[in-house]
Amino acid sequence: MHALIIAAHGSRRQASNQEVHGVAERLARLAGARYPICRAGFLELAEPSIAQAIRQAAAEGATQVSVVPYLLAAGRHVIEDIPAALAEAQAELPDLEIRLSGHIGQSPRLLEVLLDCAEQCQTA
Amino acid sequence: MHALIIAAHGSRRQASNQEVHGVAERLARLAGARYPICRAGFLELAEPSIAQAIRQAAAEGATQVSVVPYLLAAGRHVIEDIPAALAEAQAELPDLEIRLSGHIGQSPRLLEVLLDCAEQCQTA
Repeated sequence: MHALIIAAHGSRRQASNQEVHGVAERLARLAGARYPICRAGFLELAEPSIAQAIRQAAAEGATQVSVVPYLLAAGRHVIEDIPAALAEAQAELPDLEIRLSGHIGQSPRLLEVLLDCAEQCQTA
Repeated sequence: MHALIIAAHGSRRQASNQEVHGVAERLARLAGARYPICRAGFLELAEPSIAQAIRQAAAEGATQVSVVPYLLAAGRHVIEDIPAALAEAQAELPDLEIRLSGHIGQSPRLLEVLLDCAEQCQTA
């Protein structure tokens, strides 16, 4: 079974963390059988941590986990902290297949999201 | 003429700010004649400010400016700081049509970006 973990920064504002959990819930509905488990993990200031989210997915039966950094710029979090969290989880769960994608800020499809948002404010 | 401004947070890491400017440049190539001017503006830690980016677009002939918050969660920046920056620019440029969209974190199409990133790490 394949899990998708959104690796987010985490905020002191619980509403912001809840917004990220809401994205993971909508993502689960969209992904359906492709990713039966979709969950958020946080670098700091919120729970669960990224490693905790991976452990939880494994406990629920995930054999593969894809981690997508929910960050817009390739800063230290993307370059160092998220890979370190994955290494921590992999060391605990050697049989789990854990893979990491590029951060969403590098996705060409993010440009379509920006244009879509701009068009919506035109008709607002 | 219609301009699109990406309203980003700004970072102490110049590479992160350059990454946002790069997104604006790729967006300009994608948008073509729809948005002849695409530029980034920053809330803090980087130049130009959002109001400066709007002024610059107007100086280059923009008559309409659409501002898209390049932020993933609806925190204080989205709720207070970006609208304040737009109000500042509107007060200086009463004839400019300035519109604001929702932040990219609320776009349903962001879910497609997350799935696309996840699929790419599958084949990595």
